[in-house]
Amino acid sequence: MASSLRVLVAGGVACGPKTAARLKRLVPEADVTLIEKGSLVSYGACGLPYYVEGLFPDVEELVKTPVGVARTPAFFDKAKGFQVMIRTEVLSIDRKNKSIRVKNLDSGDEKNMDYDKLVLATGGYPFRPPIPGVDLKNVWFMTHPDHADSLVKEIEAQGLKKAVLVGAGFIGIEMAEALIHRGLDVSIVEMMGQIMPGVLDKDIAALAARHLQQKGVHLIMGERVTGIGGEEKAVSVNTDRQVIDADLVVIAVGTRPNDTLAREAGLPCMERGGILINEYCQTGDKDIYAGGDCVVNTYAGGSAGSPLFVPLGSTANKHGRVIADHIAGHPNAFGGITCTAVVRAFDFTVGRTGLSERQIKELNLDAETFTWAGPDMPHYMPGSGPFIIKMMASRRDRKVLGVQVVGAGNGAKRLDTAAAMIYMGGTLDDLANVDFAYAPPFGPPIDPLATCAHMLSNKLDGLAKGISTEEAIRKIENGDVLLLDVRTPGEYESMRLPRPVVHIPLGALREKTGDLPKDKEILAFCKVSMRGYEAQRILNAAGFERVCFIEGGVAAWPEKIEVSG
Amino acid sequence: MASSLRVLVAGGVACGPKTAARLKRLVPEADVTLIEKGSLVSYGACGLPYYVEGLFPDVEELVKTPVGVARTPAFFDKAKGFQVMIRTEVLSIDRKNKSIRVKNLDSGDEKNMDYDKLVLATGGYPFRPPIPGVDLKNVWFMTHPDHADSLVKEIEAQGLKKAVLVGAGFIGIEMAEALIHRGLDVSIVEMMGQIMPGVLDKDIAALAARHLQQKGVHLIMGERVTGIGGEEKAVSVNTDRQVIDADLVVIAVGTRPNDTLAREAGLPCMERGGILINEYCQTGDKDIYAGGDCVVNTYAGGSAGSPLFVPLGSTANKHGRVIADHIAGHPNAFGGITCTAVVRAFDFTVGRTGLSERQIKELNLDAETFTWAGPDMPHYMPGSGPFIIKMMASRRDRKVLGVQVVGAGNGAKRLDTAAAMIYMGGTLDDLANVDFAYAPPFGPPIDPLATCAHMLSNKLDGLAKGISTEEAIRKIENGDVLLLDVRTPGEYESMRLPRPVVHIPLGALREKTGDLPKDKEILAFCKVSMRGYEAQRILNAAGFERVCFIEGGVAAWPEKIEVSG
Repeated sequence: MASSLRVLVAGGVACGPKTAARLKRLVPEADVTLIEKGSLVSYGACGLPYYVEGLFPDVEELVKTPVGVARTPAFFDKAKGFQVMIRTEVLSIDRKNKSIRVKNLDSGDEKNMDYDKLVLATGGYPFRPPIPGVDLKNVWFMTHPDHADSLVKEIEAQGLKKAVLVGAGFIGIEMAEALIHRGLDVSIVEMMGQIMPGVLDKDIAALAARHLQQKGVHLIMGERVTGIGGEEKAVSVNTDRQVIDADLVVIAVGTRPNDTLAREAGLPCMERGGILINEYCQTGDKDIYAGGDCVVNTYAGGSAGSPLFVPLGSTANKHGRVIADHIAGHPNAFGGITCTAVVRAFDFTVGRTGLSERQIKELNLDAETFTWAGPDMPHYMPGSGPFIIKMMASRRDRKVLGVQVVGAGNGAKRLDTAAAMIYMGGTLDDLANVDFAYAPPFGPPIDPLATCAHMLSNKLDGLAKGISTEEAIRKIENGDVLLLDVRTPGEYESMRLPRPVVHIPLGALREKTGDLPKDKEILAFCKVSMRGYEAQRILNAAGFERVCFIEGGVAAWPEKIEVSG
Repeated sequence: MASSLRVLVAGGVACGPKTAARLKRLVPEADVTLIEKGSLVSYGACGLPYYVEGLFPDVEELVKTPVGVARTPAFFDKAKGFQVMIRTEVLSIDRKNKSIRVKNLDSGDEKNMDYDKLVLATGGYPFRPPIPGVDLKNVWFMTHPDHADSLVKEIEAQGLKKAVLVGAGFIGIEMAEALIHRGLDVSIVEMMGQIMPGVLDKDIAALAARHLQQKGVHLIMGERVTGIGGEEKAVSVNTDRQVIDADLVVIAVGTRPNDTLAREAGLPCMERGGILINEYCQTGDKDIYAGGDCVVNTYAGGSAGSPLFVPLGSTANKHGRVIADHIAGHPNAFGGITCTAVVRAFDFTVGRTGLSERQIKELNLDAETFTWAGPDMPHYMPGSGPFIIKMMASRRDRKVLGVQVVGAGNGAKRLDTAAAMIYMGGTLDDLANVDFAYAPPFGPPIDPLATCAHMLSNKLDGLAKGISTEEAIRKIENGDVLLLDVRTPGEYESMRLPRPVVHIPLGALREKTGDLPKDKEILAFCKVSMRGYEAQRILNAAGFERVCFIEGGVAAWPEKIEVSG
């Protein structure tokens, strides 16, 4: 490795600083310079909603190390050994001469800088919808500490009360929680018919949406925002159906890869955005690397169709390491992503890993799905939280394809374990065999993930005839089905489905099968439908052939549940 | 499958009921009878310490389903379709005639029962040390709801104040927490020189022990209990060194497999206890299965030496499913265990999965270890908890061999993910590539498990020269080393190692390398030693060859830390 190795890194949020710091540890003699357009380097943009919520008092925390040292250019020089140029924009790349043109945004001075290796870590930018009013005062995009800082200050200074968030993605949901906690009235307007479109399947999204509504968030789904009303300040968000009063608007309708430099330099990019890279994060030019939110990723362990744009700080950091290792001559391939994403939405944890059911359908994979509901700890432990796991597996080889979680239970833990299993290409049997860390404060003896894998196995084996709540409602509305509630009388008294049912507690079912008609399809259910499954097996054994159970039972039912006083 | 299939299940706590229930779902026409010596079936023995702690008011909860239905013989008959005989002991097995002899413990009546398949789920029993006084009043073993019930009643009735727990295993630690929360004075006497011997390595155990002491538990390590003093009631626990006053004694010195029936029937067992089974839980007799705490297990994905006795409710339930599936003609092999175990000890989560460092040494595997310390969330998030991960990997193929966790951070989540990875035979690179569910409430952008895998990779690659705190202390005491503290002045002011150090903040190190001697080995460290690693790389680049860093830094230091103010 030549001692004069010159490495230029364009972009200073996550992938860039990680690349530069790792590279200096691997190749101390390398001459590494990081160039950042803004004035801050290596800030924790994911923390912005939590600052707005008031969980920590100083937005500066987001640019500090855990021990309180600010990540200034001097910090990187002294502690990490690389140079940082802030307020400096990379204007263009001259690949032939291995040189970039940069401009100091304060002085306006321009100059050329030569490189042996160039790293593009230019990140993403928030999509600005082409509608009137996005430049009005009191309209925020939430991608930089300055945005969060000014939002908090203006809420206080102007006494803002009514927030309308455009977009029900992760930032929209996190900001909704933050602003509700600050005492504001909060609406979310989302063009698609569900929250977190592109991330969650509709059924899981509906359960998360119900929780947001219970926490006071007004959800306005399926309406397109046509403009922000107001003269100087925003006063409303206008949709194709209504005008919603607003004195504060946050627009979070997705991130786009900032691939302009690469594109202009003739490096291959996806048509709809995102630099194409190989497993070492090399672009079409072997001396130019790219990582973080400006690239598209491949799916780990198999095809998920075309490359995926999933901008995440976790992936950006992985890219940084891969780039530094490859430049240093110790190649370590990036294994790809499994599209993991998680959000805390008030008391709920909501997320997914692997493919969604919708993606599986789009890819024409032969797969089966199961939806499990239940508590995350033994029922006798205080703090046990109910949640729902939806799992998809391949019918052909039983590989786990995807997992989604929603609810108050500890879903994040299950997502990580599922992500590891999907990354490793594990089957349902592998997942069920995992020696989970069991003690009552951490989970039940059979972990929910294992139970869900068991049930999905039972379904693949033809033992369990589970149907989704969506399918159940369709069957009910088409008529000629009997809804069989097998819960205890006490449970039946306290809450019921808003549909006519026959109620026979499971313990009485074996004796009362004679009471049930054989000419109707029977849909059994209970609180979470483990007894629903048991009922299906009992009825099958008693000669009933058209029986299934409703997965997730009352806990997963999307309609309003009738509750007794 | 013959409609008259007669299946007898001996043992009614975890594996037995699971086998019987699953079998009736698979083969409804099977004639299944479960025989239990005690009067309770399917109780949650793992919940006993939490009842003692007062987390739920009625010990009956442990024998109820999540919806409050008691698991009585009638419940199993009606809801699950199998017969339960309680207060009935299996006396012997006549393998030739496929028959067992049973005795009703109330009436004394005996009879023979024929089987096609027999399932031994006879569980474990608490080891009773052969010392005087174990039968005195106020001495408890903690394995049955009756024990917890009487313990709580006697604490209240007699006003018991001073508890001595014999054995610092899981039950000892959980009971210590429970009794401290009830306001008792609590000591634990453990024969071995560490808590949780056989589960945790000494270094991790020492950090957990320090937390127990901080919470007021008196730990008496390395003393052998020679007897319980007292005439009628226990008044002391006597060791080979002292007499400890006690008005309440809990003995929890390990579980032994209850393999007597199998042994007497000539079925192969381990000499030191435990029925030997194949991957379908069949014993040496193909018509006799065994599962749960009465068997020994094989290690998943490779040899860990001889079969392992790790009694856990989670494994027992897995066995039950495997047995039912094999009897029903749908064989599903049990994948083996990875020795996962976890305990909540006050604010700490402590546990392990895979092999311990001690086992790795005993098995002569060529492996490397890294100990990471840090917070479980970004530092700006309230509720972020520090913890420590110790990871072992094979030098030959980089496979992850074992993981241990200790601390206030969410270690259980990392254990599950590591357990999945170890089960699948994944490498450090696989673990670091997992697409962890990232958002600030759930973890930092690079998950601690990935960072630990990265650092262990760096160590295997010769980049990171980390040493354990134990080795550091040995080096310090042998002299001629320089301890280099690279933390900030503020950190240095607030807490320090109880050893002479040179203090140069990391940011000043590049300029001050001239101040350091080249003839001494330098041990760098910081709060968690990520900066310690950076310092090592900086000094290596400046020509210092004998430099390493202390893994886990101040956070993992086993001695008392000097705190200012």
